[in-house]
Amino acid sequence: MGLLYEGKAKKIFSIEGAADQVLMEFKDSLTAFNAQKLGSFAGKGALNRDIAAMIFRYLHQQGVKSHFVESVEQIKMITKKVSIIPLEVVVRNRVAGSLAKKLDRTEGEVLKRPLVEFYFKDDKLGDPFVSDDQAEIFGFATRAQMQELKKQALEINSHLLLLFKKVGISLVDFKVEFGVDSEGQVLLADEITPDTCRLWDEKTNEKMDKDRFRRDLGEIDKYYGEVAERIKKAVEA
Amino acid sequence: MGLLYEGKAKKIFSIEGAADQVLMEFKDSLTAFNAQKLGSFAGKGALNRDIAAMIFRYLHQQGVKSHFVESVEQIKMITKKVSIIPLEVVVRNRVAGSLAKKLDRTEGEVLKRPLVEFYFKDDKLGDPFVSDDQAEIFGFATRAQMQELKKQALEINSHLLLLFKKVGISLVDFKVEFGVDSEGQVLLADEITPDTCRLWDEKTNEKMDKDRFRRDLGEIDKYYGEVAERIKKAVEA
Repeated sequence: MGLLYEGKAKKIFSIEGAADQVLMEFKDSLTAFNAQKLGSFAGKGALNRDIAAMIFRYLHQQGVKSHFVESVEQIKMITKKVSIIPLEVVVRNRVAGSLAKKLDRTEGEVLKRPLVEFYFKDDKLGDPFVSDDQAEIFGFATRAQMQELKKQALEINSHLLLLFKKVGISLVDFKVEFGVDSEGQVLLADEITPDTCRLWDEKTNEKMDKDRFRRDLGEIDKYYGEVAERIKKAVEA
Repeated sequence: MGLLYEGKAKKIFSIEGAADQVLMEFKDSLTAFNAQKLGSFAGKGALNRDIAAMIFRYLHQQGVKSHFVESVEQIKMITKKVSIIPLEVVVRNRVAGSLAKKLDRTEGEVLKRPLVEFYFKDDKLGDPFVSDDQAEIFGFATRAQMQELKKQALEINSHLLLLFKKVGISLVDFKVEFGVDSEGQVLLADEITPDTCRLWDEKTNEKMDKDRFRRDLGEIDKYYGEVAERIKKAVEA
């Protein structure tokens, strides 16, 4: 198997004899602020693989297609090979992080409806926030693709809100990526894990996601493990 | 007359006996980078008042309404009193400034169609770039207002492109503001001057606008004067 791509938290390998699939390996590393802050903990790759697989399976059951095919070994999954659309799609239910800072709003403020944002996926540029007009004019995605991304992102959000609510977690926001498969279908891709979501305990407001790493709150492994257990309970309920 | 507001480049006064009008005085001061850089030159207020008045009059002739009523004295104009919509509306025909930096594109690149951008008008926050969804959710403007702003901004752009083309100036981009008058009409407000436009000489590519101040290119007064003279020629042609 050949390494096709190594990202900040995953490696992607080709699979011999399966041109339309790839193998995705989840690493133990943690990065933040465009990789200016680096960390890791043992077992993180396995936890995130489990969480992503549970969520992709749950979404499949709700009728949301993704690149997920199946889990293999402890830290890997087989996915469909897709060509990634270079927009990070962020869905926000409550104000947090960069948005709180940009508009000087209180973290946790509930939005009157979910907000979808696009960021141009480019590490060198620091993934800048872009409007639909900018994305269209500079060719990052077509109008039709952006409409599809928004529709799918809001659908995914509805399902995830319900899933997390079952186990006492408030889904503050999350980031997803989408890809186009060999048949031209736009599919949810990448991962959905505590690396890519803001998850707050509904009772205590404790952060159960990568903000524990970004903000040096400690016990990252404990909370990632707790998220995995709660999602397991939710999908089995 | 009472001072209602003092901005970076203008003062606004109430007019006794005319509740639906205000007096706008153009100052000689120049500011850039959210007022971190300060300057001025004698006669700048008068030049900008003349330029703004000529452009508002030209736009009126083309059917584009604005808050402009009439020029008075050397550095003042009477305008309708409007309630400013807190979005700076930027129209770009070519890449320059913050957009060139954000997406690492060459200054001067011609866009395949004019790009309209919204920035939330808030000095303390540094006028952050916002998407339509953000502006709507945070109540900066309604959907209907944003559609109206985009329509008017693109119309203004068409007319200004023609006007400047007549006298060898390339209109790279410009910023406008809009207000709502007592009858609920959305009107072009604020000013259109070399402070709020990027204007390049078509032959030499020399900058004829506030970038001469931002980038320490010198001879600011000469170029502002040149813009005033060329617009005078264009509107008289």
